[in-house]
Amino acid sequence: MRGNVLIAQSGGPTAVINSSCCGIIQEALKHEDSFGEVYGAINGILGVLSEELVDLKREDAATIELLRQTPSSALGSCRYKLTDKDYDRVINVIEAHDIRYCFFIGGNDTMDTAAKMDKLLKKHNREVCVIGVPKTVDNDLIGIDHCPGYPSAARWLAIAVRDAGLDTQAIYTSDTVKIIETMGRQSGWLVAASALARKAPGSPPHLIYFPERPFREDKFLLDVKRVYSKLGYAVIAVSEGLRDKEGKPLVESRAEHDVDSFGHAQRGGVADYLCRLVANRLAIKARADKPGTIQRVSMVCASEVDIEEAYEVGKEAVQLVLEGKSGYMITLKREPGEEYKCAKGTIALEEVANKERLMPDEFINGDGNDVTAEFLGWARPLIQPELPEYAHLRRILVEKKLNAFRLR
Amino acid sequence: MRGNVLIAQSGGPTAVINSSCCGIIQEALKHEDSFGEVYGAINGILGVLSEELVDLKREDAATIELLRQTPSSALGSCRYKLTDKDYDRVINVIEAHDIRYCFFIGGNDTMDTAAKMDKLLKKHNREVCVIGVPKTVDNDLIGIDHCPGYPSAARWLAIAVRDAGLDTQAIYTSDTVKIIETMGRQSGWLVAASALARKAPGSPPHLIYFPERPFREDKFLLDVKRVYSKLGYAVIAVSEGLRDKEGKPLVESRAEHDVDSFGHAQRGGVADYLCRLVANRLAIKARADKPGTIQRVSMVCASEVDIEEAYEVGKEAVQLVLEGKSGYMITLKREPGEEYKCAKGTIALEEVANKERLMPDEFINGDGNDVTAEFLGWARPLIQPELPEYAHLRRILVEKKLNAFRLR
Repeated sequence: MRGNVLIAQSGGPTAVINSSCCGIIQEALKHEDSFGEVYGAINGILGVLSEELVDLKREDAATIELLRQTPSSALGSCRYKLTDKDYDRVINVIEAHDIRYCFFIGGNDTMDTAAKMDKLLKKHNREVCVIGVPKTVDNDLIGIDHCPGYPSAARWLAIAVRDAGLDTQAIYTSDTVKIIETMGRQSGWLVAASALARKAPGSPPHLIYFPERPFREDKFLLDVKRVYSKLGYAVIAVSEGLRDKEGKPLVESRAEHDVDSFGHAQRGGVADYLCRLVANRLAIKARADKPGTIQRVSMVCASEVDIEEAYEVGKEAVQLVLEGKSGYMITLKREPGEEYKCAKGTIALEEVANKERLMPDEFINGDGNDVTAEFLGWARPLIQPELPEYAHLRRILVEKKLNAFRLR
Repeated sequence: MRGNVLIAQSGGPTAVINSSCCGIIQEALKHEDSFGEVYGAINGILGVLSEELVDLKREDAATIELLRQTPSSALGSCRYKLTDKDYDRVINVIEAHDIRYCFFIGGNDTMDTAAKMDKLLKKHNREVCVIGVPKTVDNDLIGIDHCPGYPSAARWLAIAVRDAGLDTQAIYTSDTVKIIETMGRQSGWLVAASALARKAPGSPPHLIYFPERPFREDKFLLDVKRVYSKLGYAVIAVSEGLRDKEGKPLVESRAEHDVDSFGHAQRGGVADYLCRLVANRLAIKARADKPGTIQRVSMVCASEVDIEEAYEVGKEAVQLVLEGKSGYMITLKREPGEEYKCAKGTIALEEVANKERLMPDEFINGDGNDVTAEFLGWARPLIQPELPEYAHLRRILVEKKLNAFRLR
């Protein structure tokens, strides 16, 4: 069977989607006996519906190789939920272009789409393989050790929170509390990654809050007061998705335009809200950093492990269709042992579809304001190379010669 | 004359303050015949007042060298305006510790403090040299080609806006307008740096707004509409300090805690405000990124030119006191010619004190919504190394075989 290949991507961009794309293309090109043309859909499933496909064999090999170092999504992405009418169209496009191998790079919404397509194609006895290639900075896919895209966003946050923490530490006499807001609507994987900023115990961030735990303002204020009393400053990481004990978002979605087409509320402003709370209730000056999309797509802090694994899951997807398999998502399975290593595996698309993996209890501390050592042990190998070394002065004080001085 | 050295830092941290500090220390250690002890004040002038001085000769040479690669301020900083009573105390501390060489690393507030100290010491016939070492990401010191600290923040913004721009470009079918808020209360130097994200003309950011130009909401909405109509998305960079035609901040300082001890309002939320404006008036979905302090202190994107120049201005400050000079700030003077090069110079502290350099007219376009080629020519050499290469697909479309399809 020799047919054409289709690659499509959906959902939010990451630093390493293009690396997966590169893995699929380069592996497909190695098997000319099995694969004909290699097409990319412009803006994911929207490009399939509108028949906007690009010929990836007409790109330079050097350009394809450079995809490994290029963030975001070179083919474009979308958030679009297929209707019944759309599925018929997708099948028409697939047939018209003799596509027999479909690779969908995305998160749980994408896997849902892929699962439905696979089912429909099988029902109509079409010989088309559909494989899901995992990606999401949210790290909330089930059946996989971690999602490609997450390690790079985690490394970005570790570096940014470490630097911003040093910033607050240096000028704590005036800028005393800093609250950094991370992405993560439902799950705390990204906010947890801020803990990787710590090279020494006790260094920033001092407090971390997760959507998995109901947020209690009074407890939060006590936490902040405690850290502030001890250190004179505090660096805090919070998820955009914090919710109160009724499960209501701390900061309500502000308008209809803040809801994407899957109905997910686009939350924001949690850090700003908490800064006002700290200022009003504790009379402590606080400032918010909200890096937003920069954290998910930055290439300069990308994890080398992530770039490589993203490539490998793409390559593995091609191997799978060579074996005639369809209806699976590629997974990463961490192998036991001292040294970090992941093997590739598979999981049925319909098992993954629309499911969300939250942070397990053993990764969040009892107080719900920090990660555990287990989390750090799990996450640390993902963000290679190690964070850069910084100087730490011993700060040996010179003997005082004068009386104490009272500041105004 | 053999006396002790004092180093102090004030104001917001940057990526390269420690590099200046390293330059001062390493150069001072080379001249043991001229300099006795080398002290650092903890948290700037506050450490002088409280007599909290650390002995920098007792740090490892390797730690001092590593300061070049360490962001923020290893000695700590502060925002504190000296009172008359404080000046007497400062002079007492200087005398008690036989300090004859003072190096103040900071911006225009710091240069004001340094100028007043120099005047006072001269008035009392004290043989103490006071030298200012420039640093500020705001780039608003007069008499200098650019301020150490600015190139690294500029490079961070160039990289972040480029990546976040690719993010919006990839998913423009759902996330259509992105507004990135930069620092810069009074001046547009930082927001201007977002233009360095463009490797090709026409790529993001599409619009840039400066505090130097009155912000007109209707004009802004027309600009956004024009870009959006043409591209289907828009990436916009705005300064936190945008003001209306009466000079009033677009977003009012929210509370007293938002004002630092120099009376500067800590503005924020401009991007959020404009996102709501775009959503309400144009019915276009918009999202805000506000990286905050991360942009000023990030080491991972630091400019190599900046790290080196920050070191050099520190070293030059030591050379100046060896010549017995006092009351100056070190400057950088760009030399004419094809290749970028800056020579060191000096300017009297009282000339620099409290003055602000805004973006010159020739760096902002006529419409007030972009930089000019002159700005790019001036700024580009500062952010070396060049931004990383990314892949650009040619996107050669496959011939369509079906009728057009109407999306729901």
